[in-house]
Parts: sequence; C-alpha cells; structure tokens
Amino acid sequence: MAGGAKAIDRLVEALSRLPGIGGKTASRLAYYLLRTSADEAETLAEALVALHRDTVRCSVCCNISETDPCAICSDETRDANVLCVVEEPLDVAAIERTGQFRGRFHVLHGHISPMDRIGPEDLCIEELVRRLESGGARELILATNPTMEGDATARYLADRLSSFDMVISRLALGLPRGGDLEYADEVTLAEALAGRRPLH
Amino acid sequence: MAGGAKAIDRLVEALSRLPGIGGKTASRLAYYLLRTSADEAETLAEALVALHRDTVRCSVCCNISETDPCAICSDETRDANVLCVVEEPLDVAAIERTGQFRGRFHVLHGHISPMDRIGPEDLCIEELVRRLESGGARELILATNPTMEGDATARYLADRLSSFDMVISRLALGLPRGGDLEYADEVTLAEALAGRRPLH
Repeated sequence: MAGGAKAIDRLVEALSRLPGIGGKTASRLAYYLLRTSADEAETLAEALVALHRDTVRCSVCCNISETDPCAICSDETRDANVLCVVEEPLDVAAIERTGQFRGRFHVLHGHISPMDRIGPEDLCIEELVRRLESGGARELILATNPTMEGDATARYLADRLSSFDMVISRLALGLPRGGDLEYADEVTLAEALAGRRPLH
Repeated sequence: MAGGAKAIDRLVEALSRLPGIGGKTASRLAYYLLRTSADEAETLAEALVALHRDTVRCSVCCNISETDPCAICSDETRDANVLCVVEEPLDVAAIERTGQFRGRFHVLHGHISPMDRIGPEDLCIEELVRRLESGGARELILATNPTMEGDATARYLADRLSSFDMVISRLALGLPRGGDLEYADEVTLAEALAGRRPLH
C-alpha cells in the first residue's frame, strides 16, 4: 500500500493465506486490529504460538488434544466397544455437542481423495487397524462426511476392516430436520426416499 | 471442545473476536492452522505483534505509516495544494490504486455518527484545521463514503472549513461503471440523474 506501512502489508499477506480470507477481508481485519489496542493483536499472536506448542495428537484416537491420551480416551465411563470414525477433530466436537454418543472416537485426519492425491496411507487408518487388533470393538460407526470422498473413505474402511468381528454402520442420510422438502436437492430427497423407515 | 485442547479453544476465541469472523469460521481457521506447519501460525503471530510495534500515525496526514511523516507526505513530487480527505487508511490505498490522484491525503479515522456517539472531536479534524492554517491548500476533496455518515461528515467539514479560501468538492455520485441501470437502486439512479453531465 502506497504511503502505508510494511507491517500492515505483511499482516494482510499472512491473513490472506488463510482459507476463505481474501485480500479485502484481510485488509479489513488488519485495519481493525490496528484500530483496537495492541493487546488484542498480541492475545491473538500468543494463541497462534500456543496452538502447536500446547497440543499433541492423542496416540489412541489421533484427535488433537492437550494430553496424551486425550480426555475422551482416558474417560473410563465412555464405552470403548463403540468407535465413531470421523474425518476431522471438528467432527468430534460436532458429535459431542449432540450429547447422544457415549462411545469413543477415531480421527482419520482427512478422507481418501485420488484427485488430491490423498490415499489411505495419508490418513490415520493404520492406527485404527492396530487399535482394533489390540483392543477390539463391537461396533464401528463410520461418520465420515456425506460426500463422495467421505463415502469412498467409508467403503474403503468397511472393506479393509471386514475381517474384524464387529458391526460396521454408516450415519443415516436423509432430509435435515427443519429443512423444507420443496427445497431439498434431488440427491438428498432420493436418499431420504431410499432410506424411508416404517412408522410403528 | 470436549476431548480437544485449550490451546485450540483459546485461538478460536481470539479469532472469533475479529469482525465478520463467527465461531464456525474461527474453528475452521484454527484447525487449518493446526494442520499446516507451526511456521505459518508463527508467521501470522509475528505479523500481529509487529502491527502496532512497527507503525506510527503520520503527524501530517494522520495516515498509518512506518515513517513520520509518511511516504506520501514526504514525497515532494506530490501536489501539496490538493488535499483529499478520507475516512480510513484503506481509502487512501483505494484512491492510490486509481493512479489518478497526485495530491496529498488527510485521514479522519472514522466519520461523524451520533448514533455511535462519534462526534467531530473523535476524528482527526483538529489536525486538518491546523494543517490548513499552517500550510494552506487550494483545493479540498471530501472523499468520505457515499453514506449518511460520510455525507454528514463532509457537510460538517464544509461548514467548519468555510473560512479558508479554497475550493471544497465532494466525489461524484452516480452509476458505478460496469453496473446495470436496471439493477441500480433508486437512490443511486436519482443521484445519477441529478448529476447528469452534458456531452460536448
């Protein structure tokens, strides 16, 4: 920026590297941080430095945690016989928010995507296999995303883990609660039809 | 986040304090930064710390700069007789990008907004008055935003500075280039009509 300061340009550049943050948003954020006290920028800076310093990958479930094993894996009240396999740590948080799951998790850290050259070996699948070999679980819920990649990853896992004696399930597909049938896309509607359940 | 790490929560919290960044975006950004190398988070952290440390307010034009006076105010090739008054440093950058302005700037750092309890005394108006008293300019272009607040600020300045012997102008209002008349809002269209210019 002509007449501006390199410190601003550098922050704008660093911010615009973030996904979903374009140049204009980055500028707006930088000038916002410039207008507020230096404290706010420094609090954010400290949180950024702490992010990698204070986190570890749980050696059991591969979730990001501050302890190893993580709080869920070391919680003896949680059912170790039911494992929910998710793509990302945020998915663990989403399922935890439902308050409906008392089993444990396994985080793959991604999905299979040949287009992006992400194969099974890039995910935490070996960790899952070893975990099942050593402990065993009665049920595996494949909670990968309802996307092409999530489906492919679930199918791969179902094949790969078929030798284990356990129930392997997938999250239900259908209309989202509160959604409007009229506005549902045809794929979702077709899946809702195919997955219809008898009312008792 | 259950089973997660406080370091992530703290970063999510710090990010969601930024304007336009909600909780979901903050989570997504935090996990993105977690997936990439620690370097990227630290580069951003360093840029945040440098933001206030390495910037000053130019004592002439009030723009944010790394030197005082700023690069534009110390550029002897720029016409000191024409001052363009803008609300924010980003507006300086926007006008500089046009490449059409060879005068100098004055940054108000905001606009008058009684609703938000921002009065003239909260803006860099005294600095502008003193600047005009000491140096004088032949023309003042009021380039505050084409909003209610920008208009009010421009009107206030025009009144306040009426004793100075100079031309005071306001940026033209009208249809944006590339816009479609059919989709122009009625206020813009009315202003484009009122501001119509004869073709020679």
